[in-house]
Amino acid sequence: MPGTPATTPTAQIGVTGLAVMGSNLARNFARHGHTVAVHNRTTARTTALIDEHGHEGNFVPAETAEEFVAALQKPRRLIIMVKAGDPTDAVIDEFTPLLDEGDMIVDGGNAHFRDTLRREKALRAKGIHFVGTGISGGEEGALNGPSIMPGGSAESYKALGPLLESIAAKAPDGTPCCTHIGPDAAGHFVKMVHNGIEYADMQLIAEAYDLLRTVAGYEPARIAEIFRAWNTGRLDSYLIEITAEVLAHTDAATGKPFVDVVADEAEQKGTGRWTVQTALDLGVPVSGIAEAVFARSVSGHTDLRRAARTLPGPGGEPLPADAAEAFAAQVEEALYASKVVSYAQGWNMISSASTEYGWDIDLGSTAAIWRGGCIIRAAFLDRIRTAFAADPALPTLLADKEFADEVGRAQDAWRAVVATAVRRGVPTPGFSAALAYYDALRAERLPAALTQGQRDFFGAHTYRRTDREGSFHTVWAGDRHEETAG
Amino acid sequence: MPGTPATTPTAQIGVTGLAVMGSNLARNFARHGHTVAVHNRTTARTTALIDEHGHEGNFVPAETAEEFVAALQKPRRLIIMVKAGDPTDAVIDEFTPLLDEGDMIVDGGNAHFRDTLRREKALRAKGIHFVGTGISGGEEGALNGPSIMPGGSAESYKALGPLLESIAAKAPDGTPCCTHIGPDAAGHFVKMVHNGIEYADMQLIAEAYDLLRTVAGYEPARIAEIFRAWNTGRLDSYLIEITAEVLAHTDAATGKPFVDVVADEAEQKGTGRWTVQTALDLGVPVSGIAEAVFARSVSGHTDLRRAARTLPGPGGEPLPADAAEAFAAQVEEALYASKVVSYAQGWNMISSASTEYGWDIDLGSTAAIWRGGCIIRAAFLDRIRTAFAADPALPTLLADKEFADEVGRAQDAWRAVVATAVRRGVPTPGFSAALAYYDALRAERLPAALTQGQRDFFGAHTYRRTDREGSFHTVWAGDRHEETAG
Repeated sequence: MPGTPATTPTAQIGVTGLAVMGSNLARNFARHGHTVAVHNRTTARTTALIDEHGHEGNFVPAETAEEFVAALQKPRRLIIMVKAGDPTDAVIDEFTPLLDEGDMIVDGGNAHFRDTLRREKALRAKGIHFVGTGISGGEEGALNGPSIMPGGSAESYKALGPLLESIAAKAPDGTPCCTHIGPDAAGHFVKMVHNGIEYADMQLIAEAYDLLRTVAGYEPARIAEIFRAWNTGRLDSYLIEITAEVLAHTDAATGKPFVDVVADEAEQKGTGRWTVQTALDLGVPVSGIAEAVFARSVSGHTDLRRAARTLPGPGGEPLPADAAEAFAAQVEEALYASKVVSYAQGWNMISSASTEYGWDIDLGSTAAIWRGGCIIRAAFLDRIRTAFAADPALPTLLADKEFADEVGRAQDAWRAVVATAVRRGVPTPGFSAALAYYDALRAERLPAALTQGQRDFFGAHTYRRTDREGSFHTVWAGDRHEETAG
Repeated sequence: MPGTPATTPTAQIGVTGLAVMGSNLARNFARHGHTVAVHNRTTARTTALIDEHGHEGNFVPAETAEEFVAALQKPRRLIIMVKAGDPTDAVIDEFTPLLDEGDMIVDGGNAHFRDTLRREKALRAKGIHFVGTGISGGEEGALNGPSIMPGGSAESYKALGPLLESIAAKAPDGTPCCTHIGPDAAGHFVKMVHNGIEYADMQLIAEAYDLLRTVAGYEPARIAEIFRAWNTGRLDSYLIEITAEVLAHTDAATGKPFVDVVADEAEQKGTGRWTVQTALDLGVPVSGIAEAVFARSVSGHTDLRRAARTLPGPGGEPLPADAAEAFAAQVEEALYASKVVSYAQGWNMISSASTEYGWDIDLGSTAAIWRGGCIIRAAFLDRIRTAFAADPALPTLLADKEFADEVGRAQDAWRAVVATAVRRGVPTPGFSAALAYYDALRAERLPAALTQGQRDFFGAHTYRRTDREGSFHTVWAGDRHEETAG
């Protein structure tokens, strides 16, 4: 195996686990002038990396764990890029005995934040920094600049930050898309929420497409043009950009629009589900993300869809050209307003977890490092950064004056679009959930009072009153007088 | 302490944990002629039970665990009615060493089904039957006839069934609301889904009320009358009945409608959340339950509501009298159709778990035992029983001809109500989610194809095609030719 022999500690950083993500991350470090120790369970991948990309920078290939650790300058910085779950624990168990106090293990995989909490605690007891780190941007991002979300101790970030920032994506204003999110599992947590928001964004885009197709009657190529136009405005983002690319693509085999030959059964890998499950534990409503996860599930339930396909719907002809054009403009408003709601929900979740776990997350910084490198990168995120810069304690993005004004201006169109979808039988669970959340949040009174009355009736669960403090119970089975409870 | 001394095994069944639920259950057994051993960690509750209700039947009070076990005829049938979680484990650990092979521990608490899976496995290894049992109907049900959902071994049900059936509620056709649901945690699982459906039902009712109040402009007393009328039709159910009671109630202190003095912040105890989290693990969309859980959360987030209260909405005057009356009739259709959807989702979840865990649950029987005793008891459940009796493999309730016809007839009104809610700014997350699910399920094509295209674009996640088998990937970064994947 060519390369510097792993006998003197020359490497600033090491990467173990050289599948595409790990390999690309190592190359990214090397291309930025860092000496990178590289290691894989089987040496074939290490050899392949050196053979194909060894010329890109200074790599130190290591065959064994011992060689790998010996190649790292102290305090050692070791990034593990293996499959989340048991493989991560196995690698941690393998390397921990070889490390010294003050060394750092960075887990760059897609770990569940609860696993990161557990691992960080166990390693902290041994004096080792465990840095659960969200890395977004896929294979391409890993190579050319991902958005990086490191958790772990502030001390570890002093040693890791400059290295990570050097390989991170750069936001349009030039700042690196990497910041210390907060202690222990804060990094993996916000990466999970990032993915949840990505689910919601994709669902909203899918609904917008479906409406333009079904109600406006546009072909995919025309819709691609519309997304391209939207991408020059406030919706400017990577996902809108690639939506146009996908819709503009023609299937070579059939000559049909690509989107028409793809099976309409969406798959998922689990982080959207984790986000919703965690939000439920935190008591934070994330209906936009939940509906996105459910929409993917529904699409994949071919048995149910087959059984329900004959259910009646309203049907109807596409709109005439003028009305279609006006409708398309309304869809942009609905998409934007729904997007603001789903980001508001996502940030509520980060804020709530930050309090729950004592992470003290800077909510604006989280937006700032998603401006580049990651899947949800968008001009929009700079607006969120600005909103939290103006008021770090902003309870919801919807309370930011600028967002409130925009959504307020969009609401007529938003309502018109959802009403049209409902009348035309186009499923828009994401748009609908977002609007219902908006209306619930601004409601002077919610029918939750009735819910509390029912709960008191059947379970003596008590209720509070609007006009005085305390808990109360009405003796429903008796003369229905009110008692002070508890 | 009065009562038969616990020296000879005279009791057919024992109850430990004599808070209201346990105490009422013990009384229910005694009133049905069974001799019941009763025990509590502190003897005061045992004494109080005997003092106040000893005359109702044959109780065998026991001060110690040993006395309690000694009082039970073999094979022993011991019901634990303590707080779910650690207290349940503590009681199991206390009693297990005192039991013999073939004895039965019935956990009648609100355990998470995963805890029941764990406990059943551990006790099975010791030859003891652990019977996780859902008991619904609250305090009143426990005393006068609950709906009972026992899991555990079929063998244990032979010994327990007759006792449990004797104290269960009776369905309108006279059959007991108790059946063996399936092995290990099947009973606690369906109890969880019951509670999830209860959340969805309550949310739909709350939305109907809100619409009648805001859009039709009716006062609570008038709405109570409407619910009373609905309760004579296909919506006939306990929850509709008590809704009328709550809405008709006047607050004595203020003379205002009761529902107007109750704080509009709904609380929850967690089983709705469990249901959604579990459905996500199973990949089953339960948007109706999820929106209900989120709606309660939103109502309780006073900080967010305060911050968002100034957001603009459409406002508008209530409908004129004639239109209001027509609208109220449409709301009944929307409520009914949404209810069918949320039950369809709940049964999908039971069916999916039955397959996943090998429970072989009789889907119709589950409906049958909810016809009485429990919170969601309703005429409607007999319809579900009938649907599964006609086709035990029915993939969704929406595919049952009768339900399909009814929902099909309701859909115009359903769409009109949701469109009105959206235009008037009344939050109807439950109605909207149900309708979106209905439209997604019946869709010929879903925009999930676009989602798959996006996933392939940014993550090389591959897609399937409509026209041939296999997995495919388009080389988006290159010349965009298609490759066969994996």
